[in-house]
Amino acid sequence: MSDYQAFQVELQGNIAHVQINRPEKVNAMNAAFWSEIVEIFQWIDETDAVRVVVLSGAGKHFSAGIDLMLLASVANELGKDVGRNARLLRRKILQLQASFNAVDQCRKPVLAAIQGYCLGGAIDLIAACDMRYAAADAQFSIKEIDMGMAADVGTLQRLPRIIGDGMLREMAYTGRMVAADEARTIGLVNRVYSDHQALLEGVMSIAQEIAGKSPIAIGGTKQMISYMRDHRVDDGLEYVATWNAAMLQSSDLRLAMTAHMTKQKPEFLD
Amino acid sequence: MSDYQAFQVELQGNIAHVQINRPEKVNAMNAAFWSEIVEIFQWIDETDAVRVVVLSGAGKHFSAGIDLMLLASVANELGKDVGRNARLLRRKILQLQASFNAVDQCRKPVLAAIQGYCLGGAIDLIAACDMRYAAADAQFSIKEIDMGMAADVGTLQRLPRIIGDGMLREMAYTGRMVAADEARTIGLVNRVYSDHQALLEGVMSIAQEIAGKSPIAIGGTKQMISYMRDHRVDDGLEYVATWNAAMLQSSDLRLAMTAHMTKQKPEFLD
Amino acid sequence: MSDYQAFQVELQGNIAHVQINRPEKVNAMNAAFWSEIVEIFQWIDETDAVRVVVLSGAGKHFSAGIDLMLLASVANELGKDVGRNARLLRRKILQLQASFNAVDQCRKPVLAAIQGYCLGGAIDLIAACDMRYAAADAQFSIKEIDMGMAADVGTLQRLPRIIGDGMLREMAYTGRMVAADEARTIGLVNRVYSDHQALLEGVMSIAQEIAGKSPIAIGGTKQMISYMRDHRVDDGLEYVATWNAAMLQSSDLRLAMTAHMTKQKPEFLD
Amino acid sequence: MSDYQAFQVELQGNIAHVQINRPEKVNAMNAAFWSEIVEIFQWIDETDAVRVVVLSGAGKHFSAGIDLMLLASVANELGKDVGRNARLLRRKILQLQASFNAVDQCRKPVLAAIQGYCLGGAIDLIAACDMRYAAADAQFSIKEIDMGMAADVGTLQRLPRIIGDGMLREMAYTGRMVAADEARTIGLVNRVYSDHQALLEGVMSIAQEIAGKSPIAIGGTKQMISYMRDHRVDDGLEYVATWNAAMLQSSDLRLAMTAHMTKQKPEFLD
Amino acid sequence: MSDYQAFQVELQGNIAHVQINRPEKVNAMNAAFWSEIVEIFQWIDETDAVRVVVLSGAGKHFSAGIDLMLLASVANELGKDVGRNARLLRRKILQLQASFNAVDQCRKPVLAAIQGYCLGGAIDLIAACDMRYAAADAQFSIKEIDMGMAADVGTLQRLPRIIGDGMLREMAYTGRMVAADEARTIGLVNRVYSDHQALLEGVMSIAQEIAGKSPIAIGGTKQMISYMRDHRVDDGLEYVATWNAAMLQSSDLRLAMTAHMTKQKPEFLD
Amino acid sequence: MSDYQAFQVELQGNIAHVQINRPEKVNAMNAAFWSEIVEIFQWIDETDAVRVVVLSGAGKHFSAGIDLMLLASVANELGKDVGRNARLLRRKILQLQASFNAVDQCRKPVLAAIQGYCLGGAIDLIAACDMRYAAADAQFSIKEIDMGMAADVGTLQRLPRIIGDGMLREMAYTGRMVAADEARTIGLVNRVYSDHQALLEGVMSIAQEIAGKSPIAIGGTKQMISYMRDHRVDDGLEYVATWNAAMLQSSDLRLAMTAHMTKQKPEFLD
Repeated sequence: MSDYQAFQVELQGNIAHVQINRPEKVNAMNAAFWSEIVEIFQWIDETDAVRVVVLSGAGKHFSAGIDLMLLASVANELGKDVGRNARLLRRKILQLQASFNAVDQCRKPVLAAIQGYCLGGAIDLIAACDMRYAAADAQFSIKEIDMGMAADVGTLQRLPRIIGDGMLREMAYTGRMVAADEARTIGLVNRVYSDHQALLEGVMSIAQEIAGKSPIAIGGTKQMISYMRDHRVDDGLEYVATWNAAMLQSSDLRLAMTAHMTKQKPEFLD
Repeated sequence: MSDYQAFQVELQGNIAHVQINRPEKVNAMNAAFWSEIVEIFQWIDETDAVRVVVLSGAGKHFSAGIDLMLLASVANELGKDVGRNARLLRRKILQLQASFNAVDQCRKPVLAAIQGYCLGGAIDLIAACDMRYAAADAQFSIKEIDMGMAADVGTLQRLPRIIGDGMLREMAYTGRMVAADEARTIGLVNRVYSDHQALLEGVMSIAQEIAGKSPIAIGGTKQMISYMRDHRVDDGLEYVATWNAAMLQSSDLRLAMTAHMTKQKPEFLD
Repeated sequence: MSDYQAFQVELQGNIAHVQINRPEKVNAMNAAFWSEIVEIFQWIDETDAVRVVVLSGAGKHFSAGIDLMLLASVANELGKDVGRNARLLRRKILQLQASFNAVDQCRKPVLAAIQGYCLGGAIDLIAACDMRYAAADAQFSIKEIDMGMAADVGTLQRLPRIIGDGMLREMAYTGRMVAADEARTIGLVNRVYSDHQALLEGVMSIAQEIAGKSPIAIGGTKQMISYMRDHRVDDGLEYVATWNAAMLQSSDLRLAMTAHMTKQKPEFLD
Repeated sequence: MSDYQAFQVELQGNIAHVQINRPEKVNAMNAAFWSEIVEIFQWIDETDAVRVVVLSGAGKHFSAGIDLMLLASVANELGKDVGRNARLLRRKILQLQASFNAVDQCRKPVLAAIQGYCLGGAIDLIAACDMRYAAADAQFSIKEIDMGMAADVGTLQRLPRIIGDGMLREMAYTGRMVAADEARTIGLVNRVYSDHQALLEGVMSIAQEIAGKSPIAIGGTKQMISYMRDHRVDDGLEYVATWNAAMLQSSDLRLAMTAHMTKQKPEFLD
Repeated sequence: MSDYQAFQVELQGNIAHVQINRPEKVNAMNAAFWSEIVEIFQWIDETDAVRVVVLSGAGKHFSAGIDLMLLASVANELGKDVGRNARLLRRKILQLQASFNAVDQCRKPVLAAIQGYCLGGAIDLIAACDMRYAAADAQFSIKEIDMGMAADVGTLQRLPRIIGDGMLREMAYTGRMVAADEARTIGLVNRVYSDHQALLEGVMSIAQEIAGKSPIAIGGTKQMISYMRDHRVDDGLEYVATWNAAMLQSSDLRLAMTAHMTKQKPEFLD
Repeated sequence: MSDYQAFQVELQGNIAHVQINRPEKVNAMNAAFWSEIVEIFQWIDETDAVRVVVLSGAGKHFSAGIDLMLLASVANELGKDVGRNARLLRRKILQLQASFNAVDQCRKPVLAAIQGYCLGGAIDLIAACDMRYAAADAQFSIKEIDMGMAADVGTLQRLPRIIGDGMLREMAYTGRMVAADEARTIGLVNRVYSDHQALLEGVMSIAQEIAGKSPIAIGGTKQMISYMRDHRVDDGLEYVATWNAAMLQSSDLRLAMTAHMTKQKPEFLD
């Protein structure tokens, strides 16, 4: 793996551990962050040996969201014509969105492990992950409302598929802090662990479990679930039938069946 | 504000308090109700000084739903030809729906404060609001099933985006009463207050919080969340990028940022 | 009713009790199961006297999912050409899906009563029902992942409309067992009963309640809710207006209204 | 009928003839135009005696599009804050669009009769009609491109459902004049008449033909065709089945059938 | 092949020739027609040896549409309650639609050869075919408007994807006869032949051409084009990528490539 | 501009002329072609000085489609497991599609100038352009059917939005050659020029015309038309209102208006 400025990336067996690594800045998302995350997930997508991803933040907090210096630098690029500024801003926003689309569209499951602050852009990020797990001290806030703007890199688009409409609107309009337990109650995180270490161990163990499954089956399952966020039930049924028309001819089924009969753990190829 | 027969409307700071005001009729929705609610929300939509809305019911109950006298008067308009009756009924239903669409499409957040009975048409109404809060004595029932008809002014259309499919169907097929606590558990209301006064104070305080935010940011946030009920994630991302291309050029961002730096509360224009 | 190999079907008043009846095989879904279920639900759909359906499993378990012998027999039909195999597999999957579509598209509410194992294909089945109720010993698992494949007869398509995205993905990627109480918490089942008998009595009593309502109103309500899984709010509103343009001319409304006035229980025609 | 400033409206039998009546201004669309057209089509929609509409322009030209004075007056309302200007402009555009939506959503067929210039906003208008007929001297141009803006009251939204993509783009990017014959070739108009009088007589005769049909059948037919611009084939089939479930119980079918048998012209009620 | 009352079916090489065979009744569509057409296309769909279908009408005319006796018999089933009548009619219409859906969803291309009258239900039928070819004497009319009803078995749903919106509405509102040449100009038919025999020979020759192609490639091509009537471009691209992931592993590609190199005609398996 | 192996790119004023430049190979699309086209259109998209694009082919033919050597090299990457092959093929196809998506999503209009052969992949390419113009000797064929496969890089997805369904299916099932005049009749090309030089001059002159318009207006117009291929009319109206909320604040409107008043040609900034 290459060296990154904003991340530390490790391959542990078939698990890629991607850690935001600017603890002295509360893991704020700077320019390096937004471009490196694309490279990292492109590498993950193309590397068959990576079967599952754990995303975490170094230090006491997961992330405080977008780096305000970055916003300031965009503001500096603006000129006099409102129309041309709008053209520029629209493209900048689409670029930032593309960074988290890379997480969302990754073909492997991505598990977020969250402790401490998870604010603003950090909510946009975890909304693009498959599952979210929290330490007891985690705090969530859709901070953008306090910066005078509507969140525009995914929170308002992806969170409605994850938590209920009523609580989402309360969080988005008020920006109030939501603690770990309430986050679990409303379905924002799947489970709460007592502390940071228990969190990482717990998430790694779930990742390990997933890494042991057929990568062909996991890939298809993720594709189908993601597809259903935006498509009809009948379209989804036809899609999985077309998908499995090829995939059920894979040798992984036979391998799994044999393992099932002999009560052994199957070993799947990447 | 004009005088209304079925409502009392007050502007408290930047909060419009809209109260159904027929307590002697359990706030049943009569002809005046259905037309006045359109006028009220049109006024709200066009009045920049209104930044948030609280919707409540005068007396012991929120509302018992549509006034049966109104249904009877529609029945009287029917003639002999089934086809022409159908043409008439379809237009009447679309008109009633338009009344609650005015609530749903209002550009400002609408918070419902619910005590006592919330039956039939009243569920259609609160399903068109942004958030719902209840007093401990609140009771919810999709009453239409007991009138021999499928609910047709929004309950069956909007509630599936708010609560889970399984409980929705149980409520819709059986018409059974759901108490405040169960309503909170299934996500129908965000919070339960001990009594009517605590409810109103609590909801007013949340409304106050929202009224202090940038109206440009609140407007955009509501637009984006509502958009996601019916659109794809990728469409939503493109939409917010186009929206913010203009809105990020607003002076509210600078104002918010400065306030953030100086730890002061920003004062936004309407 | 005809004789079935994989089911036992009884008409109790206006309730059809459909029981999977291969307890010695843990109610595994064999070839007879997949074709008989279509016939049964076609009969239900065409028989006005059936107003509601209870679906259960004979013996200690609801069902262990698809019969592995059936999968083996499909594998035997495959030839040498990958393209023609894909054509064959796609059609087989579409056929299996059609069996559960018959449940999903049934015009009467279907209530699932679940005890013991509910694995793999059994999750696909209950996801096509209207409501799900469990005994305390119920265990749920999306087992397909352990057979090296993505579930393809409805689980990944219908469950996202029923439970939250985060827990769905955890269940689908890990295949872990979920007990009755957790199933209720995440909205997979509406209620948990202490044991098998309490479960059946409870579900039968809810079914009885529903069977007493106007079948015209129940039919419309189900149609509208199912429609909203895949359609926009505005389309849903127009659809119910068009639907009710005819249905509000039914005599059931008058019957219900009269019963309401006289505080009597109305007796609706089939 | 009321008096209008921008229109002259006549009821000829069951045909409403709506004529843009500012010939000295080339029928440019001023403030009165945009509000009166809504009133007129609301009256048409609610008046059962109107079964079909003919839309034409007084004088030598159909219309030169939006009145530039109107644009200037909107520009004068703009203030300093880009965000609040955007909020204002968005609402103004939605209001203008609503004027032509009233034409598009009118429940009766609308036939446009076009001579001379049909420029800019006039294309937006005829794109909202059911059918278009031209005199030989008609000239069509998507003029907005030469005013430095993208057309925003319907041309770019409705024309793609009427003419081919390739020619639409050429017209929209270049703004070039398209003569009547080319307009017919690309499907923009149904037929070309030799001169203005032949045009009006021809269109009136088609309108007469339509006015003689069952209004229940015409209303359903228009609803179904308009529905298909934006919906799937399977949704359309279900929609017409639901629609006709009521409408086939109308007496118009029996009337039509009897007339068919007796070779007489049926006389339908409004 | 079985014996049919309303059809004659022949297998000529890999071409199924399906002929409506009630020339003495102008090929009107009676009860036998509507059920047999489902059986026939099910047989076609399951029979790999059939690669392409030609649909024609015996005698001087293609078909005069639905048999009026059939409509009368449905009318006789209606009772007193408008709601239950609506329930019955809706299901009858859905059943009739299912007959033509069987044509539309057939996995092999269907070519219609049309001479003489093609009225009412016959337009619904040819709109469900892949391509349409006409003899010079062919006459097309959306006759339903003259029976006091909106066409409800596919014309108004499928024709908008085939011909332009403006001419479609004129045909649907007026019911006027359209001759073969105009039908070609508006894209309703692909080509006009001088007489009935030239028509059949011409269509058979095109069918022969198609029957010589890889059935795997033809099946995929039809699936993709039909998919695009109702889906987005990006969904279509992903669908064909998933489809071809299996199909490009077929041996037909190698066979085609070798034939291409050696300038020989490839012989594909069914 | 960089040097390209498969293309020659020139900037003429504000027009980028992109020429496929492998005339000795009939401009077959090799590996360099597929990657360079992405770079070129990314450069076009980011370079404000480019306002319009002309795409042509060097030599006697536009292009013979994909290079068969490229297909052969993909075949060589396949292994033994059908499932993993499918995973690989799906990604390869998505990559090829991405190359033409870059053309389709380019923010500037793209005009294709076509002479001689335009076969297979070349049809996929021109279907991603805004407009198509042909020399009299042009020949079009959806060649993929003769290679034993369904076209999978855009033809079957984009052509249905450009030409009629009936002729598209004939072309796709038979692969027959369509000459320039027929191509114009069915709307595949906008105009036919007598020879290659007249073609290039004609297309350059149209491009010149477009380059003189406001780039803000052209960009918005293209965005809106492309949006309508896949979205509803009401969504399109809301989208353009949101878009123009910013863009109508551009100075280009004032510039255009002034030019209009003074009868001068406006000079817009890039």
